[in-house]
Amino acid sequence: MRGEQELGISNSKNENPGEWYAEVVKKAEIADYSPVGGFIIVRPRGISLWESIRFHLDSWFRETGVENAYFPVLIPEKYLEREKEIIAGFDPEVAWVTHGGEEELGERLAVRPTSESIIAPFMARWVRSHRDLPLRLNQWCSVVRWEATETKPFFRTKEFLWQEGHTAHKNRDDAWAETIQRLDQYERLYREILAIPVLKGRKPEHDKFPGAETTSTVEALMPDGKSVQGGTSHYLGTTFSKAFEIGYVDENEENQLAHTTSWGLSWRAIGALIMTHSDDQGLVLPPAIAPEQIVIVPIWKSDKREEVMGYAREIQKALSEFRVELDDRDEKNPGFKFNEWELKGVPIRI
Amino acid sequence: MRGEQELGISNSKNENPGEWYAEVVKKAEIADYSPVGGFIIVRPRGISLWESIRFHLDSWFRETGVENAYFPVLIPEKYLEREKEIIAGFDPEVAWVTHGGEEELGERLAVRPTSESIIAPFMARWVRSHRDLPLRLNQWCSVVRWEATETKPFFRTKEFLWQEGHTAHKNRDDAWAETIQRLDQYERLYREILAIPVLKGRKPEHDKFPGAETTSTVEALMPDGKSVQGGTSHYLGTTFSKAFEIGYVDENEENQLAHTTSWGLSWRAIGALIMTHSDDQGLVLPPAIAPEQIVIVPIWKSDKREEVMGYAREIQKALSEFRVELDDRDEKNPGFKFNEWELKGVPIRI
Repeated sequence: MRGEQELGISNSKNENPGEWYAEVVKKAEIADYSPVGGFIIVRPRGISLWESIRFHLDSWFRETGVENAYFPVLIPEKYLEREKEIIAGFDPEVAWVTHGGEEELGERLAVRPTSESIIAPFMARWVRSHRDLPLRLNQWCSVVRWEATETKPFFRTKEFLWQEGHTAHKNRDDAWAETIQRLDQYERLYREILAIPVLKGRKPEHDKFPGAETTSTVEALMPDGKSVQGGTSHYLGTTFSKAFEIGYVDENEENQLAHTTSWGLSWRAIGALIMTHSDDQGLVLPPAIAPEQIVIVPIWKSDKREEVMGYAREIQKALSEFRVELDDRDEKNPGFKFNEWELKGVPIRI
Repeated sequence: MRGEQELGISNSKNENPGEWYAEVVKKAEIADYSPVGGFIIVRPRGISLWESIRFHLDSWFRETGVENAYFPVLIPEKYLEREKEIIAGFDPEVAWVTHGGEEELGERLAVRPTSESIIAPFMARWVRSHRDLPLRLNQWCSVVRWEATETKPFFRTKEFLWQEGHTAHKNRDDAWAETIQRLDQYERLYREILAIPVLKGRKPEHDKFPGAETTSTVEALMPDGKSVQGGTSHYLGTTFSKAFEIGYVDENEENQLAHTTSWGLSWRAIGALIMTHSDDQGLVLPPAIAPEQIVIVPIWKSDKREEVMGYAREIQKALSEFRVELDDRDEKNPGFKFNEWELKGVPIRI
């Protein structure tokens, strides 16, 4: 039984939640620590959760007029400076590229901390007439922010995966409707896919994104009583369209400023997922997002192996509308397998 | 007719292919130039091509045992140095992060030029027994290489999107079979999805990846007579497993070295796609990858608009198994619309 003890979770969610969380992430093979502090390696079971989140959100975005694009990972310092001039209080700590090959660059390049400052000038170029609006762009990418000191996988990491949406609209009403639509989609993701109840709300003045008129948020309550920001959707008013000249000619041939929004959801959602459902036996995954929904662990005596396996295969076939795994490993005993799949969060084990 | 002239392609594919290519990319709204030389902005029509490539390749990878993962965008200099020690001749020009926020870092970090050096140590950690093999990891990400000077969207860019697969196997035969399987999948992508014939082959000694025992490649012949490397699959032998100690205990309890492979396909495939099929009227897309397979351009006299549109909607419905766009814009005339959709590469226009 030694293997089982090594495999199990030794920390308690109630007594030492920090250590418990780190242990679940590691032992359920979700993530590992990178050699660079604040960065993590996301293992296949972890990235499959992110791919599932991406699949659902992306399809809802598409159904509601969003198009994906890709903007460069490196952003010139003067672009970020320009953003800082526009929106007082915005001063992200970034990773700076100063050398390309052997040569020192004439201007420092930031590893993308967020992309407003590079996307906005192109939105200005692509929007001319009221017929070009609304313009709805999104990208799935990684961003780097140097703030985080104490690492916690998915909650506090210097690099994280996210999506960032950036849109332009004719007027306040359209932009506000966009802001709320995205917030509702984030709420839907938490409720339907992650099975986590969230509260929708508005950030207080001191806590909103400095460029925003309103920052709306979905907040999830964690077992330790802390609230986690699960995704934010900003109504930016005309702050960015003034600065970057995102304007359009309206139906009456008059020049107007666009109203813009931005909205983002990061892999922190995976952290909230683990924290909410998992327990002292390990990871617990809702069926909608579990890589395997059902695992079959056959129990045989050596002379009955083929008979039992044949029956197990029939069950597997009968359940083929679900994601089913048949664990036919000879070298592990059924008890070990049950514990391992429980640790890894498979919802149904038979 | 002024709009039509502005919209059209003014360069000739035969006479000045370079300018023609740049014009098609720009006017079909595939990509734009970034403010940083060598970087591009990929617009929605461009990224939808990449997403389609990703969708097909990714599903074939999965069917054949590959799991996705995600490794950090920043790699410590000593990791790259270690790779350089192992494989003479490998010296990528990289973008160096030297500062995080206000502080100078103790060690420079490279913006990922390829991930062998960060993935291999984790493969070594995750592989213990012959039962852990084969291990097949892949990631979809962007990489930065500072070599390119003269920019050509998708062909020569300092940043590009790609997938990189890294696998470990028990022996030479298994690793070689993996190498060829991935090469065959690249060939399939070119033939079935991009409708481009490719030749499979092996790189000569001076042109292979320095760490590889064999570099296999699919090559596409461009209209200008040049051959374009469409994807490469490397059999790495035990070069990396020796250096990074990727070893395993075999069935007889003996220690063995794993044999590894790596393989990658980048957004250069989009460049080859444009170069191969497009013409002096603009982009030409094969149906398998076209964002819209069919566009319906209704032609009406003002009193017949509703009648014609009703009929057009019926056709759209009848064709609903395809990706159909109904162009109901009032402000453009049918001739303009036809030319625009031809420029944008929709295979069937009715």
